[in-house]
Amino acid sequence: MSKRLFIFDTTLRDGEQVPGCQLNTVEKIEVAKQLEGLGVDVIEAGFPISSPGDFKSVIEISKAVTWPVICALSRAVEKDIDAAAEALKFAKRKRIHTGIGTSEYHIKYKFNSTPDEILERAVSAVKYAKRYVEDVEFYAEDAGRTDNEYLARVVEAVIKAGATVVNIPDTTGYCLPAEYGNKIKYLMEHVDGIDKAVISTHCHNDLGMATANTMEGVLNGARQVEVTINGIGERAGNTALEEIAMICKCHHDLDITTNINTQKIGGISRTVSSLMNMPVQPNKAIVGRNAFAHSSGIHQDGVLKNAQTYEIINPKDVGYSDDQIVLTARSGRAALKHRLALNGVTLDEDKLDKVYQDFLRLADKKKEVTDDDVLILAGADRTASHHIRLDYLQVTSGVGIRSVASIGLDIAGEKFEAAATGNGPVDAAIKALKKIINRKMVLKEFTIQAINKGSDDVGKVHMQVEYNGHVYYGFGANTDIVAASVEAYIDAINKFHNK
Amino acid sequence: MSKRLFIFDTTLRDGEQVPGCQLNTVEKIEVAKQLEGLGVDVIEAGFPISSPGDFKSVIEISKAVTWPVICALSRAVEKDIDAAAEALKFAKRKRIHTGIGTSEYHIKYKFNSTPDEILERAVSAVKYAKRYVEDVEFYAEDAGRTDNEYLARVVEAVIKAGATVVNIPDTTGYCLPAEYGNKIKYLMEHVDGIDKAVISTHCHNDLGMATANTMEGVLNGARQVEVTINGIGERAGNTALEEIAMICKCHHDLDITTNINTQKIGGISRTVSSLMNMPVQPNKAIVGRNAFAHSSGIHQDGVLKNAQTYEIINPKDVGYSDDQIVLTARSGRAALKHRLALNGVTLDEDKLDKVYQDFLRLADKKKEVTDDDVLILAGADRTASHHIRLDYLQVTSGVGIRSVASIGLDIAGEKFEAAATGNGPVDAAIKALKKIINRKMVLKEFTIQAINKGSDDVGKVHMQVEYNGHVYYGFGANTDIVAASVEAYIDAINKFHNK
Repeated sequence: MSKRLFIFDTTLRDGEQVPGCQLNTVEKIEVAKQLEGLGVDVIEAGFPISSPGDFKSVIEISKAVTWPVICALSRAVEKDIDAAAEALKFAKRKRIHTGIGTSEYHIKYKFNSTPDEILERAVSAVKYAKRYVEDVEFYAEDAGRTDNEYLARVVEAVIKAGATVVNIPDTTGYCLPAEYGNKIKYLMEHVDGIDKAVISTHCHNDLGMATANTMEGVLNGARQVEVTINGIGERAGNTALEEIAMICKCHHDLDITTNINTQKIGGISRTVSSLMNMPVQPNKAIVGRNAFAHSSGIHQDGVLKNAQTYEIINPKDVGYSDDQIVLTARSGRAALKHRLALNGVTLDEDKLDKVYQDFLRLADKKKEVTDDDVLILAGADRTASHHIRLDYLQVTSGVGIRSVASIGLDIAGEKFEAAATGNGPVDAAIKALKKIINRKMVLKEFTIQAINKGSDDVGKVHMQVEYNGHVYYGFGANTDIVAASVEAYIDAINKFHNK
Repeated sequence: MSKRLFIFDTTLRDGEQVPGCQLNTVEKIEVAKQLEGLGVDVIEAGFPISSPGDFKSVIEISKAVTWPVICALSRAVEKDIDAAAEALKFAKRKRIHTGIGTSEYHIKYKFNSTPDEILERAVSAVKYAKRYVEDVEFYAEDAGRTDNEYLARVVEAVIKAGATVVNIPDTTGYCLPAEYGNKIKYLMEHVDGIDKAVISTHCHNDLGMATANTMEGVLNGARQVEVTINGIGERAGNTALEEIAMICKCHHDLDITTNINTQKIGGISRTVSSLMNMPVQPNKAIVGRNAFAHSSGIHQDGVLKNAQTYEIINPKDVGYSDDQIVLTARSGRAALKHRLALNGVTLDEDKLDKVYQDFLRLADKKKEVTDDDVLILAGADRTASHHIRLDYLQVTSGVGIRSVASIGLDIAGEKFEAAATGNGPVDAAIKALKKIINRKMVLKEFTIQAINKGSDDVGKVHMQVEYNGHVYYGFGANTDIVAASVEAYIDAINKFHNK
């Protein structure tokens, strides 16, 4: 009988914990709904005690999602668990994820404690969480560097205390595959009552082995894997969901099944990359734009003779179809809706209507409208509520001349204008804008994503603007990269201007 | 006694086989010299029969590099081996790498042949290569999906024929770590005379397990690993050199040593990314810009108490020092030279002089000059020899107005000018340019790399322009992203304008 592997997605918790990746609640709900459509079993929705934003997001995601278990993170601390339970109140199926560091590094240096005391705190936390929910997951932080014998004692104790899932994180990404596999094997063989709980992997990619470690964990008895879309996460990131899903699909002999609809992988990968401001490198496994591109003569020849010579995955299986439907000014509403659906976005009729009008305006400017464009349009309605809006912009730049910009802003209905020179058109435009919005703002990061075909394609700009000790994120998209940059800056300013 | 692992770098062969990554000979020599400085044992310099460019590059790299073995690829075909031997004539230490597909897919569908016939062709190729060089490496293409028993027969036969190294590629990236490790183990145990040759791994990353597979191969007896900088390569790429080097360094218990000077990893990673137009994603292990960034409160707290709580690698060990020396208009020639050296670039005094003048001009425009800027300046002197040069450019664009550009070109001393409107400033400028250069050119790909701080940073633009059935690559860098785009286009045009 085939073994069922549970997919625990932590894109919205461990993945979102990256500078510049922060999402607002609306964006988180969008990702959560797509995760539900993809078929994940558990969505880790946030760390409620850590911020009011996280708390609110867990509540809203709980309301928006039906089928997957919603999980909230907490330390082994009562007030954390209280907050997690409170945030989960609307979840149809809920789980509290609590835990504590078990390696020598954590026990000695972080907690200045002893192994017995840590074990006791672990047990208390699980028991405390059980008051609120049936489904309690325990994490033994830095289990990858924790002595196996002590780890087995902790796992046994928390299962006895009621933990339904026990997570064995390789927090620093240090383990070799055989080492991590043997750790899971040791627990399966030495923990009394191990069959009462699901063992979970949580591997980091610091040495590039997260996926392999996860698979070795599964082959040795783990039945849940904690993963993120595109492998995003702190430092070198987490295990990539799409890699585990496709390994299970390609290696029939392992007889491991997941609930993932792999054809939706391409769509959610693009959504997460775009919303989280994390470009996917061209040679990323499964979801990179070169992942299925054969270029060398030898390979092309082989593929033409028989695709299996060099291909183990059919690009269609991960939602990359070669029948690219191109949208143009003549495309109807249905074609746009279909294209959005393929990218994992569903809109109600009112919103679709508005996006369709924007689409027609764009299609008028450029001949072919791509999936990226469509995704941008679907997300563009958020600027409609902006307090500060761009009225007009005119920039002159070049080689052998100094750049100059004039800008007009509409701030809550009042009109302002200014002009400035600068190093390049974007610099000039932002200097002009700063003459109107006279605050101490520092542009911390400025990313232009324009991996496109043609000079009239849409450019996407991500920015981080620091103001008053906080970093605000802005996004802009336009066929004119200078305009897109200014739009991104204004988007960021809108986030703090009323504060 | 510690085991010595040989590092075989194929950045310039398997890595360079990616669309848009093609380097010219001068750039290849630059990478080869940095690979020598990094301490790799073998440089695979190209596939001489495949093109005159590859042939020439192998010759020039052979001349430029002293210590590492220079390796040239060939199929198991006499004319390939002849070309490889000829291209290697100036190498101080040389190796021919020949081979053939051994999996059922390759034997049946690619070659329409039989196992015995393929074995015979393998042996003949090795014997033929041995006429030219002592050091012959054999690859059994798609060994990952080749039956172990047949593979052992092939390996035994080619070693008997004189192969000094036998490469076991997982060509499609299909293997699981234990599976690949067991394959190497099977060969170590079943091949007569296996001690007379070095077994080599060559793993692809299609399922995200290249690094783990490589390590499992090493733990089971392989003593050479075939890798690329940043893991670049066809489809999802090859095993990343930096990951293998750091695993060996972190896991002392394995007692495996390499000759890699890990402190040079950061520098060569940036050079390869920049020259090859392959951005490194922020969460790439070891070399991504987030690889050592701790952002969550829990982690930051832990790291402050004891770095080992969450860090297994000291960023300094891979050449990321936190003492960022900032260059400004007051920096001297020595500071610039130092900064270039840290990035792995050494220039003779004449070139340094020229780059220093460019640096002063740039420092005049922007307050802080970054490592990226310095790398661009060091590569900029190539435009000096251009047939077509930008004389002036003026572009006006904005929101609520139509973009317009006027451009002046100097073509072999003669002046031309034109103007055009377009969708956005880049589109307008390129349309104007096309009025002067009236050929059927198609912009195939357009990438802006501007992951920067500040609106006056240097933007880098990579373009691919198709003309007459060929794709030409262009690069531009400027504080003005519109100007950088036009420079990239002109760079590409210069490559075919005289043809």
